[in-house]
Amino acid sequence: MTDAHLKETRVDGETVYDGHFLKVQKDRVKLPDGSHSEREFIRHPGAVVILPVLDDGRILIERQYRYPNDRVFYEFPAGKIDPGEDHLECAKRELKEETGYTATEWKFVCTIHNAIAYSDEHLEIFLARGLIEGEAALDEGEFLETQVVTVDELLAWVREGQISDVKTVIGSFWLDKLRRGEWSLD
Amino acid sequence: MTDAHLKETRVDGETVYDGHFLKVQKDRVKLPDGSHSEREFIRHPGAVVILPVLDDGRILIERQYRYPNDRVFYEFPAGKIDPGEDHLECAKRELKEETGYTATEWKFVCTIHNAIAYSDEHLEIFLARGLIEGEAALDEGEFLETQVVTVDELLAWVREGQISDVKTVIGSFWLDKLRRGEWSLD
Repeated sequence: MTDAHLKETRVDGETVYDGHFLKVQKDRVKLPDGSHSEREFIRHPGAVVILPVLDDGRILIERQYRYPNDRVFYEFPAGKIDPGEDHLECAKRELKEETGYTATEWKFVCTIHNAIAYSDEHLEIFLARGLIEGEAALDEGEFLETQVVTVDELLAWVREGQISDVKTVIGSFWLDKLRRGEWSLD
Repeated sequence: MTDAHLKETRVDGETVYDGHFLKVQKDRVKLPDGSHSEREFIRHPGAVVILPVLDDGRILIERQYRYPNDRVFYEFPAGKIDPGEDHLECAKRELKEETGYTATEWKFVCTIHNAIAYSDEHLEIFLARGLIEGEAALDEGEFLETQVVTVDELLAWVREGQISDVKTVIGSFWLDKLRRGEWSLD
């Protein structure tokens, strides 16, 4: 189906804020009815998310303080993709850096878009199995702790609201579908 | 449990970009080890998301072009909370504006946080039943179309990646849990 009645077309634009972490782009666009408007959005390199499954079926999860909401969140390991970096290589690097674990089996799960109104960020989710413990090597200024939980616990925390970070909510639902055998990977 | 070993404390900060839509805050913070760093993030008023269930069990969904990713997304109706606006009132307003529908039964589903690394945005998800058709009244510069789908279709599209918007992925998983009777509201 053609989406000309929905599509917006770029006229021109510029980077209006170029910070250490955030880059804001502001474009003038032509709307489907021919009128003009502006679109401001964050340019993001994308990120990876890892669902680390231990041999006993339990799941490795992190607790990390997140400044914008002034609280600690339960989160799956995740991190930004370096320029030109392969997604799977990034996932392996981030799992090792944040938790110390390496994995012998990796599967792609899905891509999600977390802030489509104002960011081009995409998150690439991978499942990691055959986990082998090792030494973490956190980035400077990065503080987090890891914890081991069951899929039942994850699902209960999603239902009750203790897990509200979207990548972690979605990863938990996927783990539920996979353990039931309703969905499979590859 | 105390989270002093994870928590960051604000030293000072300022609004570094104050656009039409996006506001970027940059704060100097003290890290758990006493060192200092900077945190840049988007200040967002929060948003509501509506899961509109028709009397025959099918679901009302939207297709909307999103400029940052230059593509059309399947999405549940959603919109930003006005200053001081009650979340449920906002959900009723957005459902009516975007789709024309009103609903006789509303239930709170959950709160999600979609970009915890760089935004304080929270999304409040509501289920709407007892839907009554009416006239939509889109905001100026807003273009979208609605479509009616089954929960089976939603779940298949999540699994296959046609649905990747996080609020829509999470809403679809919740609809699956509710129709199975595994989870309930209230």
